[in-house]
Amino acid sequence: MKFEVTILGSSSATPIFHRNPTSQILNVNEKLLMIDCGEGTQQQMLRFGIKYHKIDYIFISHLHGDHYFGLVGLISSMHLNGRKKPLYLFAPKEIKEILEVQFKHSATVIKFPIEYYATQNNTSEVILETNDVVVETILLNHRIPTTGFLFKEKQRLRKVNKELVEGLNIPQEYYQLLKKGIDFKDEKGKLHKAIDLTIEADIPKSYAYCSDTLADGTYLPQIQGVDLLYHESTFMHDMVDRAKETYHTTALEAATIAKECVVKKLLIGHFSARYRDLSPLLMEAKEVFPESYLAIEGETVLI
Amino acid sequence: MKFEVTILGSSSATPIFHRNPTSQILNVNEKLLMIDCGEGTQQQMLRFGIKYHKIDYIFISHLHGDHYFGLVGLISSMHLNGRKKPLYLFAPKEIKEILEVQFKHSATVIKFPIEYYATQNNTSEVILETNDVVVETILLNHRIPTTGFLFKEKQRLRKVNKELVEGLNIPQEYYQLLKKGIDFKDEKGKLHKAIDLTIEADIPKSYAYCSDTLADGTYLPQIQGVDLLYHESTFMHDMVDRAKETYHTTALEAATIAKECVVKKLLIGHFSARYRDLSPLLMEAKEVFPESYLAIEGETVLI
Repeated sequence: MKFEVTILGSSSATPIFHRNPTSQILNVNEKLLMIDCGEGTQQQMLRFGIKYHKIDYIFISHLHGDHYFGLVGLISSMHLNGRKKPLYLFAPKEIKEILEVQFKHSATVIKFPIEYYATQNNTSEVILETNDVVVETILLNHRIPTTGFLFKEKQRLRKVNKELVEGLNIPQEYYQLLKKGIDFKDEKGKLHKAIDLTIEADIPKSYAYCSDTLADGTYLPQIQGVDLLYHESTFMHDMVDRAKETYHTTALEAATIAKECVVKKLLIGHFSARYRDLSPLLMEAKEVFPESYLAIEGETVLI
Repeated sequence: MKFEVTILGSSSATPIFHRNPTSQILNVNEKLLMIDCGEGTQQQMLRFGIKYHKIDYIFISHLHGDHYFGLVGLISSMHLNGRKKPLYLFAPKEIKEILEVQFKHSATVIKFPIEYYATQNNTSEVILETNDVVVETILLNHRIPTTGFLFKEKQRLRKVNKELVEGLNIPQEYYQLLKKGIDFKDEKGKLHKAIDLTIEADIPKSYAYCSDTLADGTYLPQIQGVDLLYHESTFMHDMVDRAKETYHTTALEAATIAKECVVKKLLIGHFSARYRDLSPLLMEAKEVFPESYLAIEGETVLI
């Protein structure tokens, strides 16, 4: 099953050096979930060949513009492209007012349902469960109410062992039953146990998205051992005072969190406009946590 | 005196084929005026090296998103870049609510004054007069209240004839007086008439911006003889029914207007997403009005 994240933007606050503000696409088994939607996200989608209609779920962490200014334009384009199916929007409750005032003044009636789900800032909760993934909010500590998101693959069905079933003349349609543990009786009446004909499914993976936040540790229990942690690293650690003042994190702090939480990989992003060259941020993170990577626009990271 | 327009976006409705939604920069004697501000305008400014701080005036034609979705991001970036001087915003009155609801929910207090001027949709009026230019609204006919803008250079002072003043020992500071028609008396008491030492100033130029509108003719008297007419040409003329239905103009109609109004040059833009190749639109316009040009991103047109 596909479980991977594509970076559409990794700049903090303002676009700069051809870096766009934050947005990511999480591909879960060919269903696309969007995380944050800074200005120009729809242009980035065009650039990287990501189709509007593949997105049914959008998650907005908080209402600083670099995380949502692209949303109204994306929704308008979905509308103009004839979308009919619902869009599920998980965001602070005020997003509804922001969108609706703009639709009103342009005399636009969006022709598909927008299902608003208001994220809470006082309790972490499961906000979505599909066939493939469970999504819960992560309470972050920023200047305005902000939640991260934890995406956990669901336990998959066992996989059919193709070598063993070969020659048993099992109808293709029966494979789903085998995966669910239902035994198979062949033409001669011999019973083949499902457990013997199948193998363990892959272990479910998890992705934690943490932007923007003070590195204050309250959310660490929730992201323990995730396969991939995206954590904002707005500044280098020599700017730690500025990071604290603005409720942001340094590359060293993000790496320390990754290490303490024993995550498998760390992806850093939300880079300040002061850094044209990002390699010092990466080096700072790697010194503490070698499995650190930069969030680079257009790149896809397997989880 | 510089009087030229740079195209930042020329797409209608949605960004497509690397074309961005509408925005233009008018350079009047090194002061920059922005006309419309679709999503991604600030990224286009970065791309073409246009500095935020050079812009003091922004004109928004109407509140369809492809003409203003980039405004809140641009203002936020001006704020984050430390702007202190006022920004003058000419737009339908509802823009204030749209911006303020977003500043409120991000707990942002913009650190420079935004001077709102609400454009009227029932009467054309002068909305700005600087040392260099007079700006008046053009009443257009679109699905929601929409104004174009007419930018008229002011009459310049006469120019000093350098060949004639040479050897007369006229102090450099006196040149401004000569330009204003004040005669010069030399050391021997001989009077030199200002009119003889100066030549006619350049004839003031004018630029009319008309997007979006039905080609309904009511605004034609106002744009008679302009040096450059930007006119939307969303469709080819085989789509004239669709153009009328959506209150837009075809390339043939725009060219016919240019011809009837005896303008010097026509710039067409606001191209529908159905046209990957724009040359048929240009050919259609040129057949009626040979001095037709395409609005291409990054290109600058002298007026």
